[in-house]
Amino acid sequence: MNKEVYDFDAAFKLVQQETKRILTKGPSLISGYVGYMSDATGKMMRATALLAASMDENEMVPYDAIIFASAVEILHLATLVHDDIMDDADLRRGQVTLQKKAGKRSAVICGDYLLAAAINQLSKVSDADKYKDFDFSKYVERIALGELRQNINNRNYRLKTFRYLSIIDGKTAALFEAAYHAGALAGNASKDRTKYFRNLGRYTGIIFQLTDDCIDYEISEELALKPVQSDFENGVVTLPLIHAFENNPALIEKAENGQLNSKEVFDEVTKSGGVKFTHDMAKTYYDKAKNAAEALSLTEKQQQILGGLLERAYVGLK
Amino acid sequence: MNKEVYDFDAAFKLVQQETKRILTKGPSLISGYVGYMSDATGKMMRATALLAASMDENEMVPYDAIIFASAVEILHLATLVHDDIMDDADLRRGQVTLQKKAGKRSAVICGDYLLAAAINQLSKVSDADKYKDFDFSKYVERIALGELRQNINNRNYRLKTFRYLSIIDGKTAALFEAAYHAGALAGNASKDRTKYFRNLGRYTGIIFQLTDDCIDYEISEELALKPVQSDFENGVVTLPLIHAFENNPALIEKAENGQLNSKEVFDEVTKSGGVKFTHDMAKTYYDKAKNAAEALSLTEKQQQILGGLLERAYVGLK
Repeated sequence: MNKEVYDFDAAFKLVQQETKRILTKGPSLISGYVGYMSDATGKMMRATALLAASMDENEMVPYDAIIFASAVEILHLATLVHDDIMDDADLRRGQVTLQKKAGKRSAVICGDYLLAAAINQLSKVSDADKYKDFDFSKYVERIALGELRQNINNRNYRLKTFRYLSIIDGKTAALFEAAYHAGALAGNASKDRTKYFRNLGRYTGIIFQLTDDCIDYEISEELALKPVQSDFENGVVTLPLIHAFENNPALIEKAENGQLNSKEVFDEVTKSGGVKFTHDMAKTYYDKAKNAAEALSLTEKQQQILGGLLERAYVGLK
Repeated sequence: MNKEVYDFDAAFKLVQQETKRILTKGPSLISGYVGYMSDATGKMMRATALLAASMDENEMVPYDAIIFASAVEILHLATLVHDDIMDDADLRRGQVTLQKKAGKRSAVICGDYLLAAAINQLSKVSDADKYKDFDFSKYVERIALGELRQNINNRNYRLKTFRYLSIIDGKTAALFEAAYHAGALAGNASKDRTKYFRNLGRYTGIIFQLTDDCIDYEISEELALKPVQSDFENGVVTLPLIHAFENNPALIEKAENGQLNSKEVFDEVTKSGGVKFTHDMAKTYYDKAKNAAEALSLTEKQQQILGGLLERAYVGLK
C-alpha cells in the first residue's frame, strides 16, 4: 500500500504527468487522436479540487488522490469528446474539437477509449477497500443521463426551470461531486464530512454551469474562447432563455415556428432579465455551498483552493 | 460471499433476468431508449460461453459467473450501439438500430450509459479478490482500438491481411476472450487452464468474424437478417475483398476512384476465391481452437456448449 503523502504542488505535477501519460503513451492510433489534448488540459479544476478535498491537517495529499484526480480528468475529457459530438462543436478551450478534427465516428470510439482508460486508472489505487462506497460508474451513468436529457430537450422551448436544473445536476455537477467525493474518501474523511464535501462539489458544479449559461448571453466570442450564442443556435435551451420564454410565452410558438433569430433571442433574454434570474439562481446555490464549506472548517490551503474555485464559478472567471 | 452454485439452465435464466433488469429498470429515459433491446438480446453466446467456462466438475455454475455474464452481455450491447453509429446501420438482428430509432446523438450517450452499467454490474461479484488479474477496462480499450482501426481503414483498399486480423482481434475477439477469461476465473481455473480458455475464446471470436465476412459475400438479405453486401457499401474492407484486391491490384485504383460498384465487387471476390481464402484462414484458427479445447479436457456439457459454439462460428450458423 502506498502511504506516501505529497504537498499540493508535487501532487498536482504528478496528476499532470499521469494525465499526459494516459493521453500520449497509449497505442499510437489513440494517442495520435487524443494526444493533442494534453497540451490544453485546462486548469484541471476537478483534479485540483479533489487534491484539496483529500488533504490532511498538514495539507498533505495522499497517493490515491493523485490516481483519482487523473482518472477524473480523463473521464472529464471523455465526456467532452462525446459532448462535442452532441453539440456539433468545432472549438473547445480555443482548440479544434476531436469530432471536427477526426470525424464523429472516431470521436465516438476515442471517447469510449478514454472512458475505459479512466476506469482502468482507478484500479491503481493502493487501498481499494476504502472506496467501496465510491461508485465511479454510477457517476458516469448520472452524467450520461444528464447529457441524454439535454439532448431530448434540444429545441424544447417549453423546458421548465426545475427540469433544467435536473439536467445540469447530471451533466456538470456529477463530475464535480465525484471529484470531491473521491478526495474526501482518499483523505479518510468521516461520513458526515464526506457528505459536506460531496454537496460542496455538486453546488460548485451547478454554479459553474449557470454562470456559463449567463456568459453565453453576455460576452464576445473573443473573450469566451468559444463561439458565443451558440447555445440557442444549437437548440440548447438554458436558464436565461427559459426565463425569457416564461416571461413572454408568445415567444415560444415563434421559436417553435423557427421565426426567432439569435439577435432577437439575445434581445429578449436581455429584456426579460434572464441573465440576472440565472445569476440569482446561482446565488442560492452559492449560499448553500458557503454553508457546506463552513461546516467543513477547511484548512487555509483548502479554503484557498475550494473557496477560490467556488468564487471563480460564481463570478465566471475560468 | 455468495457460494451458491446453479445448473446451466437456472444460471442462464438468471443472466437473462439480470440483463433484462439492467435494460428495463433504469431511469425511464434510458429504458425508453434501450428497453426494446431486451426483446432481442440474441442467443447471448458470450454469456453462454462464460457460464460453460466457469463450470466445476459437476457442471455447476458459480454465482459470480452469472454477474459477469450479464455484464458481458450489456457491454456487448454497448459496443453494438456505438458500432451501429460507426456503420450507419439501420438494422441489427432484424431490429431497427438505436441510432436509426433515436438518432446518433442519443445513441452515443445510451452506449456510454450501457458501458457504465456493465462496469457497475461487475461491482456485484461476491469475491472481488479472485478477479484481480481480470481487467475489464483493458478489454474495453482493446475493443475501442479495434473499432478505431476499422474506422480509419474505412475505404482503405490497400489494407493488408495481417492488419485486418489485428482489427478483428480487438473488434470481435476481445469480447469473447473476456467472457472465457471471466468464466475461467469464476470457476477457479488454474493459470494454465485460464490461458487456454482465453485462447479458445479469442479464436472463437476471430472465426465468428471471418465467417461473418464470408456471409456478407455469400447469402441473401432475407437469410442474414441484415442487409448483405453492406460491408463494401459502407467502406468496410474485409478479408474476402482484401484477397480479391491482392489478387488483382489493378482493382485497387479503380475502387479508389469510385469506379467499382457492389455487383463488380461481388464478382471479383467470387472470381478470386476470396470467400474460400477467408474460410481457409478461419480453418487455421479453428485448428488452434481445437487444440486449446483438447488441452482443457472439457466436461460433456462444456464440450456441448463451447465446442458447439466453435462449430457454429466455423460453419456460420447463429
